[in-house]
Amino acid sequence: MIVQKYGGSSVATPEKIKNVAARIKKRVDAGEKLVVVVSAMGKTTNSLISLAQQVSDDPSPRELDMLLATGEQMTSALLAMALSDHGIPALSYNAFQLEMTTTGDFSNARIMDLNLNKLKRQLEMRSVVVVTGFQGITPDGDVATLGRGGSDTSAVAVAAKCGCPCEIYSDVAGVYTCDPNKHPGARKLEYITFDEMLELSSLGAKVLHSRAVEIAKKYSVDLYCASTFSDERGTYVVNSLPEWLEQPVVTGVTTDSDQIRVNIVRMPASMEAVSALFEGLAAQGVNVDMISTVNENGHSHLTFTVVDAKEKAVLETVRRTLAPWDGWSVTEDRNVAKISAVGVGMKSAPGVAARFFGALSRKSIKMLGTTTSEIKISALVSREEGDEALRALVAEFGLGE
Amino acid sequence: MIVQKYGGSSVATPEKIKNVAARIKKRVDAGEKLVVVVSAMGKTTNSLISLAQQVSDDPSPRELDMLLATGEQMTSALLAMALSDHGIPALSYNAFQLEMTTTGDFSNARIMDLNLNKLKRQLEMRSVVVVTGFQGITPDGDVATLGRGGSDTSAVAVAAKCGCPCEIYSDVAGVYTCDPNKHPGARKLEYITFDEMLELSSLGAKVLHSRAVEIAKKYSVDLYCASTFSDERGTYVVNSLPEWLEQPVVTGVTTDSDQIRVNIVRMPASMEAVSALFEGLAAQGVNVDMISTVNENGHSHLTFTVVDAKEKAVLETVRRTLAPWDGWSVTEDRNVAKISAVGVGMKSAPGVAARFFGALSRKSIKMLGTTTSEIKISALVSREEGDEALRALVAEFGLGE
Repeated sequence: MIVQKYGGSSVATPEKIKNVAARIKKRVDAGEKLVVVVSAMGKTTNSLISLAQQVSDDPSPRELDMLLATGEQMTSALLAMALSDHGIPALSYNAFQLEMTTTGDFSNARIMDLNLNKLKRQLEMRSVVVVTGFQGITPDGDVATLGRGGSDTSAVAVAAKCGCPCEIYSDVAGVYTCDPNKHPGARKLEYITFDEMLELSSLGAKVLHSRAVEIAKKYSVDLYCASTFSDERGTYVVNSLPEWLEQPVVTGVTTDSDQIRVNIVRMPASMEAVSALFEGLAAQGVNVDMISTVNENGHSHLTFTVVDAKEKAVLETVRRTLAPWDGWSVTEDRNVAKISAVGVGMKSAPGVAARFFGALSRKSIKMLGTTTSEIKISALVSREEGDEALRALVAEFGLGE
Repeated sequence: MIVQKYGGSSVATPEKIKNVAARIKKRVDAGEKLVVVVSAMGKTTNSLISLAQQVSDDPSPRELDMLLATGEQMTSALLAMALSDHGIPALSYNAFQLEMTTTGDFSNARIMDLNLNKLKRQLEMRSVVVVTGFQGITPDGDVATLGRGGSDTSAVAVAAKCGCPCEIYSDVAGVYTCDPNKHPGARKLEYITFDEMLELSSLGAKVLHSRAVEIAKKYSVDLYCASTFSDERGTYVVNSLPEWLEQPVVTGVTTDSDQIRVNIVRMPASMEAVSALFEGLAAQGVNVDMISTVNENGHSHLTFTVVDAKEKAVLETVRRTLAPWDGWSVTEDRNVAKISAVGVGMKSAPGVAARFFGALSRKSIKMLGTTTSEIKISALVSREEGDEALRALVAEFGLGE
């Protein structure tokens, strides 16, 4: 038994859905049983969001999820039809039918459970069950969606619950040392660890949704990413690299341009102000990164980065939480990119940070901030220097061809 | 408490959905509580069927219903959003959430029950609940649709269960003495009886789905049909006309061109053959009308009409059930239209049939068959003479302006 997930670009048209059905047929003919999780077709989710914006200035999150969930239900029914046409009697199931329960956080719900018995009973009778990704049912019986890329999470959750491997198919052939669109010499990785993948996917690599990787790691789900459009071998995401594989120091580098830098000039010196600010941001669900303070002429300036989608909430929170204090001001800087190198090999290889910073400084790239973890080094650079910084790191760590 | 239903053309665009929300707001402001049942937007159902046909030559009925049900879920969510934008905190519910159970006949399911407690609990907390029309959940937990026009049935079923009136809004301002598109002098009726409406809607009048009228009659639901796009008064569908209203002999006339005539030449003379044929057709769910036999040169020819959507099933059934006999052949004739006059007044007014046939024969319109009931007279005519036959009957029974 295997869980497969096909992303939006893999099922964007009736022809592509038929192509997916033909791929599934090969596996069924080889004797496999498949749970197939699907996303909405192509740009369907965006079209539905646009419809919502045309009827309401501020669509209710509950209703938006009710609306968006129709996209995956459409694909699942269409794929089941296409499979039946290939002589494979598949049935589609939505979140209600599989009792896929989630938290009540509309547009960002987390999967809590699903009815495994029902799924297994269906798979005893047939080779393929098609399941709507991206959605679940809250304890109140409302429809909730898991947020962008949530179908990956659905697939891995089903695989974790079933104790079986999970294959994620998309228009990308696997995980690369860096973005192949930006760097033609990017090498596809045969293996990558969960920890590296987590750093890469939360840093903007679009191959796998980071929550999916978290669940896969937690439940030791065998994860494999490959292309829907070729039979080329993809990438295995594993707990630790096979021993026979030489451990690279840096596995991949990635650029994330969806960031803004927030600068609070003359940050109030009291610890109370600092706590109020960061507690307020945490309450808004804002992840803060690259925090730094600079002292200048006796004043302390605080800067940090957030994803730019949160800009409005962040600026409001800053103004509200610091309102009791005087003299500060806040500005934002969109002209930034975060560039990161990731590799479990860093743990045992000293001097990686020195090579990272050296590579950038030799190209006279100015670092506006840095942050490091055991397996990651990131630097904030100006957006226009992002690509050059990426190339410098690819060369330094031998990630190109 | 009132149930309202808005048809596909009433919610065809975001602007129209906003218009519906504005209409609902007026009623809420007047202190009413509303259950609003919606159809899919405009031609959505047709687009979904076309998608299905692109992935499969013969889409599975279960999956087709799973696919089509998304249309109403979209509208319900969008209308709930638009209402919230008007300050009316409405929630949308689909068939799963309201436990709207149906039989397992995909694409033609019948409503069996719904969870009234859940609906009433929601209406205690807010003024409007939006409900997906056209769909239900089978006892096996599958999604099933009620067939074309099924949202009317959903609305009336909810009203019957709640014991409240039901208002059906569409792009037609009510029930007319004849099709206003074909006859500009058609008069809108202020009242019509359930029995008349049943004859009219099963005869092709598009205002109300006949199963909806059956349920309304059975549970004495106050039914009202009017336009979404004006405040013009519509038509009340009632058990019997108010006593102060003069009873017309004929309430309305209607043409149905979705018919074919099947001719079995040299029908085998045995009663066994006749039973095999009609039992076979009944087993296929085919309604047979205007049965007649003609004897010619010692041979008996059988003709009857069926709706043309059933053509394939009918011809197959004829060939299969009559296979044990020899010498017969079957042909079909698409060039027919059924024209009918309906009126509860016929019961007490003799000579209506004579006037009906006389009006057609004075125009030299050839009748290919006839059928009558207590409140209805129908004649089959050639399709090109259908409009002329309609005008003759409108004049004869004083139905124009």
